[in-house]
Amino acid sequence: MAGRCSSASEGVLDRLCEPGAVAVVGSVKPGKIGHQLLTQLVEGGFPGALYAVNPGSEAPPEFPAVRAAAAVSAVPRGLDLALIAVPAAHALSVVEECGRKGVGAAVVFTSGFGEVGRVEEERILGETARRFGLRLVGPNCAGIMNTAAGLFASIEVRALPGRTAFITQSGAVGGAVLALAETRGIGFSKFVSYGNRADVGEVDLLEYLAGDPETELIALYLESLQDGREFMAAVRRTAAIKPVVIIKGGRSQAGLRAAGSHTGSLAGSDRVFEAMVHQSGALRVPGIEEMLDLCYGFTTLPLPQGENIAIVTNSGGPGILTSDRTEELGLHVRETSPELRSRLAEFLPGHCALANPIDLTVEGTRENYRRTLEAVLAEDYDGVIAINVGTPFLDSAALAQGIIEAAVPPPGGSAGPLAAAAGAAPGARKPVAAVFMAGGIVQSGCDRLAEAGIPVFPTGERAAYVLARMREYSRRFAAPIPTAAGPGPSAAAPREAVDVLQQAEKPLAAPVLEPEAVAFLETWGLSFPEHAFLADGAGAAELEAAAARVGLPLVMKVVSPEILHKSDVGGVALGLDTLEGVRKAYADMRKRFAGRRMRGVLLYRQLCGGLELIAGLKQDPDFGPVVLAGAGGVLTELLGDVAMRIAPFDRNEALAMLAEMKAHRLLQGFRGQRPRDVGAVADLLTALSRLGLAHPEIAELDLNPVFVFEQGALIADARILLR
Amino acid sequence: MAGRCSSASEGVLDRLCEPGAVAVVGSVKPGKIGHQLLTQLVEGGFPGALYAVNPGSEAPPEFPAVRAAAAVSAVPRGLDLALIAVPAAHALSVVEECGRKGVGAAVVFTSGFGEVGRVEEERILGETARRFGLRLVGPNCAGIMNTAAGLFASIEVRALPGRTAFITQSGAVGGAVLALAETRGIGFSKFVSYGNRADVGEVDLLEYLAGDPETELIALYLESLQDGREFMAAVRRTAAIKPVVIIKGGRSQAGLRAAGSHTGSLAGSDRVFEAMVHQSGALRVPGIEEMLDLCYGFTTLPLPQGENIAIVTNSGGPGILTSDRTEELGLHVRETSPELRSRLAEFLPGHCALANPIDLTVEGTRENYRRTLEAVLAEDYDGVIAINVGTPFLDSAALAQGIIEAAVPPPGGSAGPLAAAAGAAPGARKPVAAVFMAGGIVQSGCDRLAEAGIPVFPTGERAAYVLARMREYSRRFAAPIPTAAGPGPSAAAPREAVDVLQQAEKPLAAPVLEPEAVAFLETWGLSFPEHAFLADGAGAAELEAAAARVGLPLVMKVVSPEILHKSDVGGVALGLDTLEGVRKAYADMRKRFAGRRMRGVLLYRQLCGGLELIAGLKQDPDFGPVVLAGAGGVLTELLGDVAMRIAPFDRNEALAMLAEMKAHRLLQGFRGQRPRDVGAVADLLTALSRLGLAHPEIAELDLNPVFVFEQGALIADARILLR
Repeated sequence: MAGRCSSASEGVLDRLCEPGAVAVVGSVKPGKIGHQLLTQLVEGGFPGALYAVNPGSEAPPEFPAVRAAAAVSAVPRGLDLALIAVPAAHALSVVEECGRKGVGAAVVFTSGFGEVGRVEEERILGETARRFGLRLVGPNCAGIMNTAAGLFASIEVRALPGRTAFITQSGAVGGAVLALAETRGIGFSKFVSYGNRADVGEVDLLEYLAGDPETELIALYLESLQDGREFMAAVRRTAAIKPVVIIKGGRSQAGLRAAGSHTGSLAGSDRVFEAMVHQSGALRVPGIEEMLDLCYGFTTLPLPQGENIAIVTNSGGPGILTSDRTEELGLHVRETSPELRSRLAEFLPGHCALANPIDLTVEGTRENYRRTLEAVLAEDYDGVIAINVGTPFLDSAALAQGIIEAAVPPPGGSAGPLAAAAGAAPGARKPVAAVFMAGGIVQSGCDRLAEAGIPVFPTGERAAYVLARMREYSRRFAAPIPTAAGPGPSAAAPREAVDVLQQAEKPLAAPVLEPEAVAFLETWGLSFPEHAFLADGAGAAELEAAAARVGLPLVMKVVSPEILHKSDVGGVALGLDTLEGVRKAYADMRKRFAGRRMRGVLLYRQLCGGLELIAGLKQDPDFGPVVLAGAGGVLTELLGDVAMRIAPFDRNEALAMLAEMKAHRLLQGFRGQRPRDVGAVADLLTALSRLGLAHPEIAELDLNPVFVFEQGALIADARILLR
Repeated sequence: MAGRCSSASEGVLDRLCEPGAVAVVGSVKPGKIGHQLLTQLVEGGFPGALYAVNPGSEAPPEFPAVRAAAAVSAVPRGLDLALIAVPAAHALSVVEECGRKGVGAAVVFTSGFGEVGRVEEERILGETARRFGLRLVGPNCAGIMNTAAGLFASIEVRALPGRTAFITQSGAVGGAVLALAETRGIGFSKFVSYGNRADVGEVDLLEYLAGDPETELIALYLESLQDGREFMAAVRRTAAIKPVVIIKGGRSQAGLRAAGSHTGSLAGSDRVFEAMVHQSGALRVPGIEEMLDLCYGFTTLPLPQGENIAIVTNSGGPGILTSDRTEELGLHVRETSPELRSRLAEFLPGHCALANPIDLTVEGTRENYRRTLEAVLAEDYDGVIAINVGTPFLDSAALAQGIIEAAVPPPGGSAGPLAAAAGAAPGARKPVAAVFMAGGIVQSGCDRLAEAGIPVFPTGERAAYVLARMREYSRRFAAPIPTAAGPGPSAAAPREAVDVLQQAEKPLAAPVLEPEAVAFLETWGLSFPEHAFLADGAGAAELEAAAARVGLPLVMKVVSPEILHKSDVGGVALGLDTLEGVRKAYADMRKRFAGRRMRGVLLYRQLCGGLELIAGLKQDPDFGPVVLAGAGGVLTELLGDVAMRIAPFDRNEALAMLAEMKAHRLLQGFRGQRPRDVGAVADLLTALSRLGLAHPEIAELDLNPVFVFEQGALIADARILLR
């Protein structure tokens, strides 16, 4: 396929998605899945050869073009794709037979594998496929479609042709999306329900579709991940080329429970998934209606290149509701300029509202919609929402025509986000989303807009949502990389990942007490206040020398493998501001912890005036090391004010992470205070993210508190727990 | 009308909503509004007399039943309703003519009044109507409908019959809602677009509809309020009888700007409106799709009596997405009990998931839906969402039948929230919401469910939203008051309002300096630390005596009408813990503020160990005095952690207000601290709410900080600003 970027999946998934010959393996009696599949393939107009494979060598008489065979081995050579709908007990032998026959790909519809606990059978199924170099989709899936190739190998509603590829872990969500999309006239390039992914999973599919020239947008329904880090890397690479829209099922406890029982895999924490979304540049949506709205918008509208949105309406109320939502979503309904207002006043009478929203009132004729939109598009607005609220007595088709005349570029212009963004020069097309309300009275207008390629949304709020998310994409990927050029710089793994791999560090050994934790973290460039370790049994002179080295006031902490929560048991003495006090505290501790394997005490210079943060590292089952940062004290515990990123990440990502915290304003210098050293905190977090990757043996690392000053950030307590 | 509760609007609005004779005043030439209105009235089957009134005495020939007259005065006696669609310049004379004729009500469609700045003309229009005892709707409105009376006096889509009354300030939002509702088969009892409300406004309509036996639910689109406090009282009374669902346009700055230009009235702060919603028991929704979903749910489902929701599905993914949303909305997808699981296992095979969601998988037959729902409804779940994801090969009508068999009570049972809540005894009906996905493939099932009175939602998320909001209503109004009985106790004005009216307080005089503020607030039962005022020029002995009375350590603050921000200019001395220090601070202040009209100093006992809150009072343009409370210091400024209530309110409302603050956990005893005296804070807020009403001259009152202890709460600084 010319123009497709090279990927490991190339060629192999081609036989899955663009087969020349397809066999349906399993009963083709009416009512059986095999029969339904043949119906779909024939009615969908599959142009290649079709076979029905079953012991009785039956083919449905109503499909004369379908040839029958008693076994896969009996099918003529050159079979690309087998659609397997046999009982679970026979699936493996059919896959083996396909493998021996040299079939390129198989879709196993059959359920009764991992989702009901038969995990081992499923593993063998995948292994068998891989042994033969056969790519296997499923088991427990709803099939695949490639609309351009006329391939409808699924029992779900046949997708209309379109430019969105939709891949889904749940066949039912897939079916529901296809059926809803059909009612809205939204089409798809590819559809893949990958079910239990014994072989082909979300990562293969993303990589394949990233290079698919028929696909402008990838939509994805997920419940769990095969490999979180590989997935993240694939999304990062893909999102830089084309938008990736994700629904993640299993955000709540009940949802997780159901996802567990549904696919047999455990989903990770939703907050970590959210961090993945931020870092990779994907667009997460809550449900299928939002997903469809985005598919529709991205494949029909150019990307907005800024936040300023104009709203042109023929009625106040819907204009107001649209304004409210647009602003809530972070876009800006900027007031019209005096110049624009005077231009509009040339043809609009005085009872029209010329602020933004621009309310044409009953003057919303075809001509006035056209002239108003032309005037608005000539100003530096980044997108327009054109609203028409109909009545049974208003000709909505005429108003649609006015919008089309202003919004659709002369022939030769191209649609779609890539084309539009490529032409980001002045004069480039701007998104114009129409809102025609509602129902049957505006149908003729909606039809005309759809024909002209202008998307129509049922409410202004939904149009605003689409523009806001499209702007989110264009802000992130200012200049998307054309498909043919392959992944660009932002798709590469962050530089840090490479550094980390080059560091061959010795793993830490348990237990890591505070002195070792401090020493270890210092090798990673993290900073602590002046400190000294004093081994148990040290004399008065050593104590005094250490105290002098550290400086008063100081903090003394007991060091013992038996004592984890030091302050709870009197193992921390704060504010020691005289030598006398230091001596007394030392004597007290030795007495208190006699017989508790006291290794000694750690002395720190006591800090004051710093802003308290916390930082840490934990292991996520899906994504591995994750770095956390939050405000110290009340803010974190009370509000869960914690930001997260998956390691590794660079300084910019660390700064973005800090900006996400509610406590960010404290760092910037709240209430007249001088700003704190945000850069030092970003460096600390970046270092954590790198050491997390280099030391997978660390289960948990807590820096609490970290004191942030106008210059620098110092860690006042470090705790490392190994797995 | 038997069964209608008495209200000031009774009878008068009857002639508006149930007229015997209707005249359309204005041109009835094709294309004119007059013609469109006659078309709607005739096609809608209006049973009464119809007149066309215009100078030419024309009546459209296609409507032979419509009689013509040259003027309102020429119409036979007994005209109830005039629909006025004449140019703005003639509207007043037509209204006068109607008044003289004894017409009961008029709807003025004509625009060009307050919304384009002609406020005075609009005022006169309303006054004229009132002078004649004629109730006037509009101007600048889209008309009214009463489906049961066959009255369609509007150019919008004719509503289907139903049990929701929809009243709207924006005619276009009205039209859009009616058109969207038609496509979904959702009907209305009444529709009133009240436009610029020169006479009839939202309060009249609420009161009328509260007593309308054909209306089970009132939906309301608002941009601004005529009288916030009257509106709030009306909503409070109405919501106790039937649900009131509100969309408020103008939440954002751009929305407010548009609302301003649209209706010529200034909208108040959205946070105060939100407080009104909480206090009155209304249900606020963001947009028209959510509004329609609620209208649909409330008029078809009994109220859920608790939070436990069961989800029965034939496919995992949509069950997961529904679970996620259900839990996010505060309902609980509680796991199935072992008893229920064993009952289900009697007929469901092992590959069905028997946790909640219950996933029937391919075993989701008519019979299994029925038996599963019956088993679930017999357990103590408070509502059920039944999901079917279809394929083109699945008979959705049969599955619908299974759901109907389990969910619809035997004949004699009644639907609707009032009926259901009245029968809150064990065995009462529980809400069963269906979700059939999606589009044409499940149409036959949707139709059958609709016929049986079971609502069908396009996604499980939307069904969850409806159940959550219905539960919000049933939690608030545990036992709704039957329509016939009239407003009950919760509809009465709070007791405090009465008390306040009995207190004939002298207004405060400006400026209110801190000593007066303290003295004033003490008369309202608010508590301060020990304090003493020392007039300027007092000698050392007086100072020492005052200090002794207050006790050390103490705080000294300058008192001067010229100094508002005392701490900025050195007017506050903290932590004075010796007499020497007190003397020095006093001398310093006298020196520093010499010539600045220093009235003296205020001494307070310095507090420590209290939790810092802020409390205050401000005037809202719509709702008058509003009380605020928030955590002191960083939390309030950083997070806007402020709760609000419109005055007056009782102690329970004050406690609810405190529970809304993010800092509420601090009051409850955070991190091992002892709980604080929440009751004392509630008393303080309640007192503020009462004094706010008694002293409308107070523009702003700030108590910052208020220290809350384990026993009691003391105000450490009070500032009062008069208007």
